[in-house]
Amino acid sequence: VRISELSRETGVPTATIKFYLREGLLLRGQATAATQADYGDIHLRRLRLIRSLVDVAGLPLADVRAVCAAVDSRAPVHHTLGTMQEAAIRRYLGDVPQSDSVPSSAIAALVSRRGWQVYPGSSAGRAADRALEALREAGWTVTDDDLLTLAEGLEPVAAGELAQLASLSRGETDETAVIERAAAVMTLGERLLVAVYRLAQENASARVFGAG
Amino acid sequence: VRISELSRETGVPTATIKFYLREGLLLRGQATAATQADYGDIHLRRLRLIRSLVDVAGLPLADVRAVCAAVDSRAPVHHTLGTMQEAAIRRYLGDVPQSDSVPSSAIAALVSRRGWQVYPGSSAGRAADRALEALREAGWTVTDDDLLTLAEGLEPVAAGELAQLASLSRGETDETAVIERAAAVMTLGERLLVAVYRLAQENASARVFGAG
Repeated sequence: VRISELSRETGVPTATIKFYLREGLLLRGQATAATQADYGDIHLRRLRLIRSLVDVAGLPLADVRAVCAAVDSRAPVHHTLGTMQEAAIRRYLGDVPQSDSVPSSAIAALVSRRGWQVYPGSSAGRAADRALEALREAGWTVTDDDLLTLAEGLEPVAAGELAQLASLSRGETDETAVIERAAAVMTLGERLLVAVYRLAQENASARVFGAG
Repeated sequence: VRISELSRETGVPTATIKFYLREGLLLRGQATAATQADYGDIHLRRLRLIRSLVDVAGLPLADVRAVCAAVDSRAPVHHTLGTMQEAAIRRYLGDVPQSDSVPSSAIAALVSRRGWQVYPGSSAGRAADRALEALREAGWTVTDDDLLTLAEGLEPVAAGELAQLASLSRGETDETAVIERAAAVMTLGERLLVAVYRLAQENASARVFGAG
């Protein structure tokens, strides 16, 4: 199909599609004339992925590029998800600088206690270290058991999400579609998590301090 | 003590303290001369609370004012926490507009299933509705059981936080100190939650898609 039809089908303006082409996020179509090219399913899917990453996940262009590059390099899904996760953490917390200090032994102990297969130097690990440190500086007590409660509460949530992704992946020959859903759950899932956490806090506050 | 000592004790610059006085966040001290006033414990504590809300919780001045007003009005702790929570949600998600549409029956069903004492029109409830709606629009399946898993995972986390606040509250005649800790846990606690959620996802991804 032509670029104008690609635009109609996806609702993405032609100018935006041309921008993605110039930026190399979207591959050029098969040339059919000096100023025309033919776009197919592969372009349609990629365009949908880009829009998910931009509109749904709210990622900046540099991160969209990194995710697309991971998809293009046919990296294992786990690797592409990791790229997306780093982007999602940056979006939430800003850059989490590599720390010179030894990572909090409390987070390392938690990871080992739960037998989690995670990369110790990941943004997630460093972000957890920092949040824990900041809480303690603010006079808040977080025991190892508190961390365990948190981890045990979140494990089935994450397992459920990844099981759904795995199930999509099995029925799907095109990895793009899986990454597109992953982009949604990794960002909107965080919002649902935070919102339900607030509801749970509101309930706990009502119980402890009285709804008045 | 004088304003200069108040500044020394808290590390807050004199100019900033004067700004808080002008903005009415900090009560004026007892006048001891035409250009001098005496500041006491009450000012010290309030100043610490303001700095927690600004530096730790990252709240904008309008929200700091609302929290201070709740403390000043001797509102019940549950009410002040609610004010702070609304501010924390705005900080995370931006304004969550009142919706004309009926709230998602899935979140309402979850609240009733768990017997949560929450105000249905709260920002948290509306934010959960929106996140759920957005996930579904993005083609992600969230069943009532998924929501239940999330709620059950977060309940003990929130209960633990509020139990710690209640315990601080029992030993403390001054509500300001309790609100100060609450500001820390309501904001930094969210960061720890999100970071550990990312670790849990990384682990689940490694298990499902292989750490490669």
